[in-house]
Formats: sequence, structure tokens, C-alpha cells
Amino acid sequence: MSSSDSTKDPRVSEWWRTSIIDMKPGELRYRGYPIQELIGNVSFAQMIWLMTRGELPSDAQGRLLDAALMSAVDHGPQAPSIAIARMAATCGVGLNNAMASAVNVLGDVHGGAGEQAVEMYQAIAAHIDAGALPADAICAGLDEAIAKYGKFVSGFGHRFHLIDPRAPRLLELVDAAAKEGHVGGHYAAIARGVEDELASRKDGRRIPMNIDGATAVIYAELGFPAPLARGLFCLSRSVGILAHAWEQTGQGGRNKGPIPREYVWAYDGPSQRAVPTAER
Amino acid sequence: MSSSDSTKDPRVSEWWRTSIIDMKPGELRYRGYPIQELIGNVSFAQMIWLMTRGELPSDAQGRLLDAALMSAVDHGPQAPSIAIARMAATCGVGLNNAMASAVNVLGDVHGGAGEQAVEMYQAIAAHIDAGALPADAICAGLDEAIAKYGKFVSGFGHRFHLIDPRAPRLLELVDAAAKEGHVGGHYAAIARGVEDELASRKDGRRIPMNIDGATAVIYAELGFPAPLARGLFCLSRSVGILAHAWEQTGQGGRNKGPIPREYVWAYDGPSQRAVPTAER
Amino acid sequence: MSSSDSTKDPRVSEWWRTSIIDMKPGELRYRGYPIQELIGNVSFAQMIWLMTRGELPSDAQGRLLDAALMSAVDHGPQAPSIAIARMAATCGVGLNNAMASAVNVLGDVHGGAGEQAVEMYQAIAAHIDAGALPADAICAGLDEAIAKYGKFVSGFGHRFHLIDPRAPRLLELVDAAAKEGHVGGHYAAIARGVEDELASRKDGRRIPMNIDGATAVIYAELGFPAPLARGLFCLSRSVGILAHAWEQTGQGGRNKGPIPREYVWAYDGPSQRAVPTAER
Amino acid sequence: MSSSDSTKDPRVSEWWRTSIIDMKPGELRYRGYPIQELIGNVSFAQMIWLMTRGELPSDAQGRLLDAALMSAVDHGPQAPSIAIARMAATCGVGLNNAMASAVNVLGDVHGGAGEQAVEMYQAIAAHIDAGALPADAICAGLDEAIAKYGKFVSGFGHRFHLIDPRAPRLLELVDAAAKEGHVGGHYAAIARGVEDELASRKDGRRIPMNIDGATAVIYAELGFPAPLARGLFCLSRSVGILAHAWEQTGQGGRNKGPIPREYVWAYDGPSQRAVPTAER
Repeated sequence: MSSSDSTKDPRVSEWWRTSIIDMKPGELRYRGYPIQELIGNVSFAQMIWLMTRGELPSDAQGRLLDAALMSAVDHGPQAPSIAIARMAATCGVGLNNAMASAVNVLGDVHGGAGEQAVEMYQAIAAHIDAGALPADAICAGLDEAIAKYGKFVSGFGHRFHLIDPRAPRLLELVDAAAKEGHVGGHYAAIARGVEDELASRKDGRRIPMNIDGATAVIYAELGFPAPLARGLFCLSRSVGILAHAWEQTGQGGRNKGPIPREYVWAYDGPSQRAVPTAER
Repeated sequence: MSSSDSTKDPRVSEWWRTSIIDMKPGELRYRGYPIQELIGNVSFAQMIWLMTRGELPSDAQGRLLDAALMSAVDHGPQAPSIAIARMAATCGVGLNNAMASAVNVLGDVHGGAGEQAVEMYQAIAAHIDAGALPADAICAGLDEAIAKYGKFVSGFGHRFHLIDPRAPRLLELVDAAAKEGHVGGHYAAIARGVEDELASRKDGRRIPMNIDGATAVIYAELGFPAPLARGLFCLSRSVGILAHAWEQTGQGGRNKGPIPREYVWAYDGPSQRAVPTAER
Repeated sequence: MSSSDSTKDPRVSEWWRTSIIDMKPGELRYRGYPIQELIGNVSFAQMIWLMTRGELPSDAQGRLLDAALMSAVDHGPQAPSIAIARMAATCGVGLNNAMASAVNVLGDVHGGAGEQAVEMYQAIAAHIDAGALPADAICAGLDEAIAKYGKFVSGFGHRFHLIDPRAPRLLELVDAAAKEGHVGGHYAAIARGVEDELASRKDGRRIPMNIDGATAVIYAELGFPAPLARGLFCLSRSVGILAHAWEQTGQGGRNKGPIPREYVWAYDGPSQRAVPTAER
Repeated sequence: MSSSDSTKDPRVSEWWRTSIIDMKPGELRYRGYPIQELIGNVSFAQMIWLMTRGELPSDAQGRLLDAALMSAVDHGPQAPSIAIARMAATCGVGLNNAMASAVNVLGDVHGGAGEQAVEMYQAIAAHIDAGALPADAICAGLDEAIAKYGKFVSGFGHRFHLIDPRAPRLLELVDAAAKEGHVGGHYAAIARGVEDELASRKDGRRIPMNIDGATAVIYAELGFPAPLARGLFCLSRSVGILAHAWEQTGQGGRNKGPIPREYVWAYDGPSQRAVPTAER
């Protein structure tokens, strides 16, 4: 509600304050745009931009964001998020609950790689803006990232793929957009520089950019703050989570565990012992 | 993995089975399509369709799905889902966690209206297919929905809007798509018939279609099974949830409660009493 | 706050209303009891009773509740709830988040068995109260439960244990409490009658009471409404969830999936195909 | 399962490994103790200890843990966790889901204070063990905590209570246990020293220990690692969360938002504007 609509007690009406949505009976405006004008004119990806950034993207920006979102939806049931969605679907909860349990685990390790990569790219860009040579800026940014997040550099390397097929294709899109002037292309150059530097530190063995490193290039090119990279990944992965929860629902199963019942687990605790029952 | 890739022990490799995603090192296929071909050619909304349905939509179908998804992203901090996202953001959890706590409450009452409306429309269509006159089918379907879900008919009426501005605009898009032969238009007719029947039961007082009733028309026209309507709403509302959690993060606040601290709550339990300390 | 403390605008102060807790600066009362008197005099299990029921239990009642709570904490990493907690712990989220993702899946199938068993026992008791012979009441209650929840009768049978060692031990405690007059013992008799009836329907093959059937006897003897049986199970299982999340944290691991990476999954979807890129 | 029970393929059976629980059909052992011996002999609080620590506590240790757990169950609907539980209960989800959404927000700010206080106390103790004078150790530990977590020192001060009535009562229990030799009492001394040091830094204005600071004393006295303090708080607060979700279920309500519908919120974004529909 605009503040002129506020009820008498300002403490309450201003307890919740937003610049995202304004409404009156029969009216809904998002960032100032009436919903009936947005519908049919603005894509889902453009709406995601508007909601999180405050302004509408250009069509070219919207397409790049769209590509980043559609490319990270799923990496199969070996990912904890997907496995959890499928298990949850067999426990008698709704699709919304299965989605929640799964999205919830997209934490620093599982869902935070894109955020950490954007952070590193932006730090490198800041070093360059401050006058550092690109090669020095890349070294410094990489060292800072390793110091902060450990030796697995977020956005590079994959435990399953040697080359993650999503990364080069996304970079192609960034290059094309840069050529047409829709984005600057600086972050693509920085990310490739990081990849080269990583290889030079490993005697030439390359640790190629992965999906998180590539979507982070897009998010950085588009000006997203780093933490939103995690939020956007959550939106993206929610699609795979929903699809797997729904497929599992169709397959049935009750309380499906991680492995078949015959396998159980390795127990390495104390042997059987008696409970002391006297006063302890 | 295709079954030819299975490891020796078939019990384990088939414990998880999916037709959504197949992969080998360096290869990722979704429903058979290589990811590098999908990227740049398929929108986020089309990818959502592919993942949940198994085939790619036509462009016109993809646009209708896109409109349904982008129109339901947010209804402000009075919605429990949005309020929860904002509160969570002040409690020291990640954006993924704030999103999870919020998506989780999109249950039968908050997020299930679209699912229930699709179910009602499809039941009415089934009555018509079985030979019932449309008016009779609508009456029967409406009565069944009320018997199952109570007097608030899902998809119709809104406690804030007299006319929900999203509904007529979405119906326009359905009408245009039907005119061009992209969808049948039967569910739009059924939904309008439900609206008329509701009015006739209220002495002409209309209870207009709301966002859930309108997106349900789209989902039914596009052939989605009813439970996916809830899943799609979760994807859509996740956008508003993310935007509000992010905005709240910027506003700061620590452990922000629902109302200002001065207001507390009404207590209607027992007056102060002493704890009996002897053996009870 | 007691209503006399309400601020001027009653609409707000009464928006949240509770009989559980009342407070003023420096004062905290739960169901009327000052916290400083409860601390040291009331056990955790007794506090759970007070919070959910409104009155303090007798010591004997508190001990029975305690036994039900401590007995259902864990059934190992084959249970989806426990597996989810362990996976979550490797994804870079907090213990609170790992607990949430796991507790969330204690739905109708995984966590609802106790609730459904209490419901069945109470329905049988109601038939008896209405004049039915016990044997007839048991038959009717069992048939109603099967009609509502399916052929797996909640509270009886276990896919791993022939005899669930927790059930007979808990029943011993109920029998002892009944002998001393602390509980009536009627629900223990009903549950045993259900077990006998199930056996007679299987040509004598017994489907013994499991942990949910046994804790449900206790909850019913203690007068808990059926839905709280699920809530109490969530409190109990949260302990195992926490213990496993914590143990997994110590073991390390990053994005630990359900099975080792070499096993992946069976793919049964379409073979590789090309994305149609023309207007669809 | 003990490793001798492992199936042929050791990669799988050891994928999940635990020292918490071991089982065979008809047998369940927790940390080596058969469940039928634990039931009736070990309280819920003692079981929580056994599950998280690996050994049974003495009775006196169990009683202190019990007091810490029962004292932190609830602080009313102004706490985001409790408000979320109540809101969730009106959205058509199960009690398990309402509990999950609420426990999930017990993050660094809402649920992490106990963990941070234990960490600070243990750091101070380590300084003393390394030879520092207590007053110097306290100063150093306090400064480190402020540097790491900010100026609100976890465990001290309360925005509602001047004196949190739970803290002095819990400290009494610690003092009594120390007098009888059940705990060392060192952490109680450290915590009181922190309180004094804080006062001296504020010209004598005291910032008294709160519930988190007091339970942290107990957890530290009992030897719990700091992160478990958060996990134990989650178990404790889950009780209040359940009680409020259940009470709200009884009160009814549909999609109950944070404040009455008449209040809405303050909107501070752009005024109404038109969507640019040409190529952007």
C-alpha cells in the first residue's frame, strides 16, 4: 500500500515495508508496473529480473538470464537435492514440502558455488579497476577465494565431467551478446583467465569451468549481486526438484531410503553392552 | 545412466530410476535432448515443461505456460509465504533456507487452490465427455468440489480483490490462443460456466475467478495433471519469495517478528499459579 | 500478555492469541506457571505435556510419555528422514536446516503411522462406548482404518523386524502403569485385540505391533488427540536426526549423494534426439 | 549393521557408516545398548545425551541437560520461529511441515546464540588453560566474540526482559551441581565474569545473562561441543513450535498473515508506470 493508504497506526503499517509490490483492491503493481500490462509482455525470466532487481531487463539481457536459469535445472539423483526430493515424495508429503526439503540443502557447498564464483569474479574486477594488471588481479582474486572457501575453487572442476558440456555453450552465448554490445564481456575474460591460471598452477592440467562458473559469468555480466546467484540457482534447480519429485510420485514407493534394504550400513560403534541401571 | 552402463550389481543401479536425465562424463541429456542443444534454443518456461512433461511444448504452448508462471509470483507480505521468507531472512539463514521455509507452507490451503481448480475443471470435462449437458456437468463438478474441499471454491473469490486483475488478462491470452488453434478453449468455457453458476447460487452476486482459477484454466488447457498445478505455483511463488527475502536482507533487522514488539499478543490462558512440587 | 496489557488498538494485539505463554518484562509463565518454578521441578517430557495439553501430568503419566519419546528416536540411515539429515549435513547448511529438511518428510507415510493408529484405537473405543462388543468394535475399526489408509495397517507389521523389540517392552510399561491405576489399560487391550484380529485374517500369521502401534497405545492411554501423536513422533525422531547430522558433520563429505558415484542410476527415457529449432 | 553383516559389495554397505545405531531383524542397539534395556531406564533427556555423545550421562548430568532443554521451549509468537509455526498451521500443511519451516529459521541470529556463547566460554577456558589470568582471558574471549559476531554479545542482554527469569534459576542449578561435584563450575564462573566485564565496559550498566547464555553454561559444563548447543536448542524450541502450531490449528484461520488484513504494508517503490512493450 502506498503510505497514504496507511491506517492510523504507523508503527504497524510500516512494520512491513517493500518496494516490490503495491496493491489496492483490484490493482496490483510490481515495481510500479500494473500486472495486467506485464502479463503477455514480460517473460518469466524477465519477471524474475524485475522482482529481484527493480527494473526490467533489455530483451538481450533477459535471454541471457533465461539461458542461465534453464541450464542448471538438474544433475540427476546423485545430487543430494534431487535424491531428497525423490525420497520426500515417498513419505506422504505434498510436492511443496518435497521441494522445500530439497531446496533447503542448496547451502554453501551444494548451492553456493555460483555465489562464490561471482564474488571471486567481482573481486578480480575490483582489483583491475583499482589499477592491477589483469594477470595479477586474477592471481590475487584466486588466492583470496582459496583462503576463504578452500582448495576446491567454486565454479571450476567437476567430479563427474571432465568438460561440463553446459559451460562452453553458455560462454558462447555470452561471447555473442558481448559482440553485439549487450554485455561487456569482461567477466567472461576474467573467468577464462582464472581457468588459465588454475591450469598453470597444475602444470598445465586444466580444471575447466563448470556450470556454476559459467552461470556466474552470466550473472556477473548482468550485474547481479553475488548472493542472488545462489537465489537464482535455487529457482533453477527447483525445476529439477519438482520434476523428480513428481516422477517418483508416479513410480510409487513408501519411505524409500537411499539404498536397497538389503544393503543397510556399516556400524562402527561399541559392541553390545548392558545398560547400567543403578544410580549413575 | 543407460542400463548398459549399469555396474555389476543391478539392485543398486536400478534403485534409482528416471526418464528425466541421462548422463556420461561430458554428456548431459534431458528427456533425450543434449543440453548444449537446449541451451539458447529453449526458454526457462519451455524447460519447465520438458522436465515435468517429457516433451517440448510448441512455442504457443510455452508462451501460455510462461504467462501463468510470471503472473503468480507475489501477492505481498500479507501472504504467509512472503512474510515467512522475510522473517527467515532476519534469522541468520541463507536465501535457500528462507525460500525453503516459505515454499514449504504452500500447502492445501495456500498453494493448493490451483490444483483443486484444475481437478474441478477436469472432473467437469469428464462429465461432459460422458454425455452430460455442460450446465449439469458444471453443477455436478461444483458440488463435488464443495463436498471435498469446503464452501470456499478454489479458484474463485478473493478476500482482498473484488476483481483480481490477473484473471481477466490471463483469460484474454487463453482466448487468443484458442482462436489461433493452439489450445481447445474448453476449460476457459468451463471456468466461466463455474463463475456463472456460482453467481446464480448467490442471487447474482458474482464471485469472480481469481489468479488460481485463471492459471488453472491455462494448466488444464495445456494438459497438465492437477497436482503439477501446485508444483508450478511453487516455482512461480518462489520468485516473490526470493525477491522479498533479498529485499529484507538489505533492510536488515534481527529476528523480526510478525508485529512490532510493543504489540505482543492476547493471552487467554490460566492466571498465574504455583507448580505442585510433591509427587503428582 | 494478558489482555489488560493490550495496547490501544485491539485489532492488532488480538491478532495473535494464545493460552500457552504469557509474559511481561522479567516474567514468563507457561500455562500460568512461572518459569522459575518449573525449572528444576518439571522434566523435559513433563514440559512437553504441559505445553501441548495445558496441564501438568502426574509423575507416572510423565514417565510413560518419556518412554514413548525416548524409544522412537532413530531407526538408522535407511529411513528417509535420517538419510536426508546426513545428506543435508554435507551440503553446507546448519544443523537447524538439516533437522528441518528431515523432520519435514515425517508425513502421512513416514511419520503419520502413530497418528493413524491412535485414530483407529480411539474409533474402536468409541464403538465400544456406543455399546458394541469389543470383538465387533475391533473388526469395524480395523475395516475403517483399511478403507481410509490402505491395506498396511498403521502400527502393525515391520518391513525389517519380525518382532519390533520396542513394542513389547513399551507394552510392559503400560501394563505396569495400568496395574497401579495410573492409566486405564483399555487401549493396550484394544491394540492387542487388533493384533489378534489381523492374525486371524491371515490364517494365524501374526503381524506384530510395531513402534508406532506401541507408542500409539501410550498416547491413547494418556489422552492425547491423534494428531499430536505425529507431533510427538517429530520431537522424538528429531533426536536421531540431530545425532546423525552431527555424526555426518564429523565424517565430512561434500554433497554426499544416496549411493557411491560409480553407481549412478538406471535411465529409462528416450534415446538421444535433436532439439527442433524451428518455430514449434 | 556390523561390518560382518555387510553384503558382498563393500562400497555400498560402507557408503553409510555410523556408530549410533546397529540393527538386525528383531534387534536394535543404540551406541551398543539394546533398546529394550534402555526403555524404562533412561529418560528422554538421557537418550538425547546418549545419541549425541555416545555414552550415557550420570543422573545428575542428565538432570542438568533436562533443565536446559525444558527451559528454552518457547518465548511467544513474537519470535519468528513461533510465528512461522502458527502461520504454517493455517496454510494446509501437516504438523511436521509446520515444525520444519519453523525449526529451519533457528539460524545464526535466532538459534545460534547458545552455540556462540559456548564457543566464547570455551575460548576463555582455553586462554586460562594456556596460562592467562581469568580477567585477561575473559577480556580476550569477549573481544574475539565481538570481532567475530558483532556487538550484540551472544548470551547476554535481552530486548524484552531486563532480567531473563530463566537465567538465574538455571545458574542456581549449576551451582548446586558444582557444590555436589557433578560439574566443575568453571564455566559458570567464566559466564559471570563475562557479565561483570560487560558491565564495566558500560559504566556499570549490566547486560544480564539471558537464556542462551545460561543454557550455554550448562552445555559447556557438561562438555558439549559448541555446535551441538544449537542442535539442542532446536530440540527444545521444537516443543514450543509444536504447541503453538497445534493451538493455532484449533483456532482455525486460513492463510493467516503477520498482521490483520486492514494494515497491509508501507510501499516505497516507484509510482505506477507503463510497461515498455517495444524491443528493449
